[in-house]
Amino acid sequence: MAQDLASKKQHTGQIKGVLAAALTPMDGNLNIDHEAFAGHCRRLLDAGCHGLGIFGTTGEANSFTADERIAALETLVGSGISGKSLLPGTGSCALPEAVHLSRVALELDVPGVLVLPPFYYKGVSDDGLFRFFAELIERIADPRLRVYLYHFPRMTGVGFSLSLIGRLLEAYPGVIVGTKDSAGDWDRISTLCREFPDLEVFAGTERYLLDTLRHGGTGCISATVNVTSQLARQVHDAHEAGRNDEAEALQEHLTSLRSAIEEYPTIPALKNLTGRFTGEDVWQNIRPPLTRLGDEQADELLSRMRDLGLRQDYS
Amino acid sequence: MAQDLASKKQHTGQIKGVLAAALTPMDGNLNIDHEAFAGHCRRLLDAGCHGLGIFGTTGEANSFTADERIAALETLVGSGISGKSLLPGTGSCALPEAVHLSRVALELDVPGVLVLPPFYYKGVSDDGLFRFFAELIERIADPRLRVYLYHFPRMTGVGFSLSLIGRLLEAYPGVIVGTKDSAGDWDRISTLCREFPDLEVFAGTERYLLDTLRHGGTGCISATVNVTSQLARQVHDAHEAGRNDEAEALQEHLTSLRSAIEEYPTIPALKNLTGRFTGEDVWQNIRPPLTRLGDEQADELLSRMRDLGLRQDYS
Repeated sequence: MAQDLASKKQHTGQIKGVLAAALTPMDGNLNIDHEAFAGHCRRLLDAGCHGLGIFGTTGEANSFTADERIAALETLVGSGISGKSLLPGTGSCALPEAVHLSRVALELDVPGVLVLPPFYYKGVSDDGLFRFFAELIERIADPRLRVYLYHFPRMTGVGFSLSLIGRLLEAYPGVIVGTKDSAGDWDRISTLCREFPDLEVFAGTERYLLDTLRHGGTGCISATVNVTSQLARQVHDAHEAGRNDEAEALQEHLTSLRSAIEEYPTIPALKNLTGRFTGEDVWQNIRPPLTRLGDEQADELLSRMRDLGLRQDYS
Repeated sequence: MAQDLASKKQHTGQIKGVLAAALTPMDGNLNIDHEAFAGHCRRLLDAGCHGLGIFGTTGEANSFTADERIAALETLVGSGISGKSLLPGTGSCALPEAVHLSRVALELDVPGVLVLPPFYYKGVSDDGLFRFFAELIERIADPRLRVYLYHFPRMTGVGFSLSLIGRLLEAYPGVIVGTKDSAGDWDRISTLCREFPDLEVFAGTERYLLDTLRHGGTGCISATVNVTSQLARQVHDAHEAGRNDEAEALQEHLTSLRSAIEEYPTIPALKNLTGRFTGEDVWQNIRPPLTRLGDEQADELLSRMRDLGLRQDYS
């Protein structure tokens, strides 16, 4: 049945497959290092990513001001990374800021924007969230707008219920086009694929990459793909080519890497690994309230990655 | 013993007593109505508030951009409300934004700033939060800075542990000066009063106003004081004058009003009541994800307030 769903699914979105939720490198003053950012994005695309989710949770989006995010996005595209390969996070608790960030992104020709719900107030109603997205869409008022709903309730404390997603799809067909689901719950992802055939469903972890593709989903947008992009792409391609056994074996390898990284604080762990692989100092830096990985943990993680056969894409 | 604590306590902060966490009125396009805001702040001060917490949770701070908050703060002071009576919220998930907001506030002569922890990431360490506040203080680098720690874990999902507060007080004496505690937990407030004699402790609800004052705390900063300011001030003054029985009776009345309002969504309820009392249309408007109170609930609330003898300060 999963295979049936996958074969029937028409992917109308302009971006699909394996997306890294790109890390944001910063200098010693904790300002974004634009050159290192472009370099990292280029490496990820070269290593097989179909696209990049930038300024998501992994990209420390909410630790930057809107102006910092805009400057980095514009510089990135100016450096030659195509806007078409980027799915930037443009959410904000403040509606006008989400509008502004989204408009800037659209001018850079992005295939869509990944939007968090406003996440300060807790216990808000679906009506209130619906109204936020309705206002967002109507204020942006741009036919190019494609919104991906960013569901990460463990961070936001505010989630998209299935009925809210249905209501938004009905009210804004062709504008609400997809979701990144970071709830870490396979049942929810498979339900989304089944219940909303018009929704582009990205799993928030490459742990579910193959399962998501098999159920007609669109791919994954994942933090750990910052270091596993080559392998994740191989899973995708083996599935695409119908080499099912190979896809499963590759997915098992990918999942083992993901599981090991998940035992550490994710963003510090990924920044550390990227620093080890590239030799760049910028990966030591992280904005508070996040903290860098301790040396001992970092050594242990790297050694586990090597034991698990992680290929260092950037060496 | 509580009375002993209260009499020994030296309040070094420049603001104390009854503070309303002021609501923010907005026009039909959901932009801040500066004139109505100044009018509301003036009414609250005239009704007995010693000061105002502006752009806190009740003021929908995080639903506004930094520029909107700054324009409103500057216009408010320009309209004749003294900066000395304001304790503005200047927190942000983005460190440079919290720095910028705080600097602007200091130029307006505020007695302090009320700072949320960065609230996007959950499960962050005390080290990470310490580092955020250390960076904030060191980047602002202004001897006038007085920081009040805004503890509201039900909204932020991130709290100030007692050991973190102790560490901050030790590292930045005279800069970290107080806290607004909105955890709704009397035990925590009394512990703060006892364990940190140098900390100005504001209860986040006037329910604990008298108890807080009796334990040497500084007062309250509360949403519901938008409609109960006169009565809250009477509690304060009766306590101050040593009229203990009267203070207790007034506190009981105040608590009954607070308890009734708490049965409704707080901010929509307070905006509605303020609209009823002032006759101003602006109080109908609220930024998503919050939603206005339904007519039926609003009628019921008003009738309960009248039954409970709420004096309409603004009629």
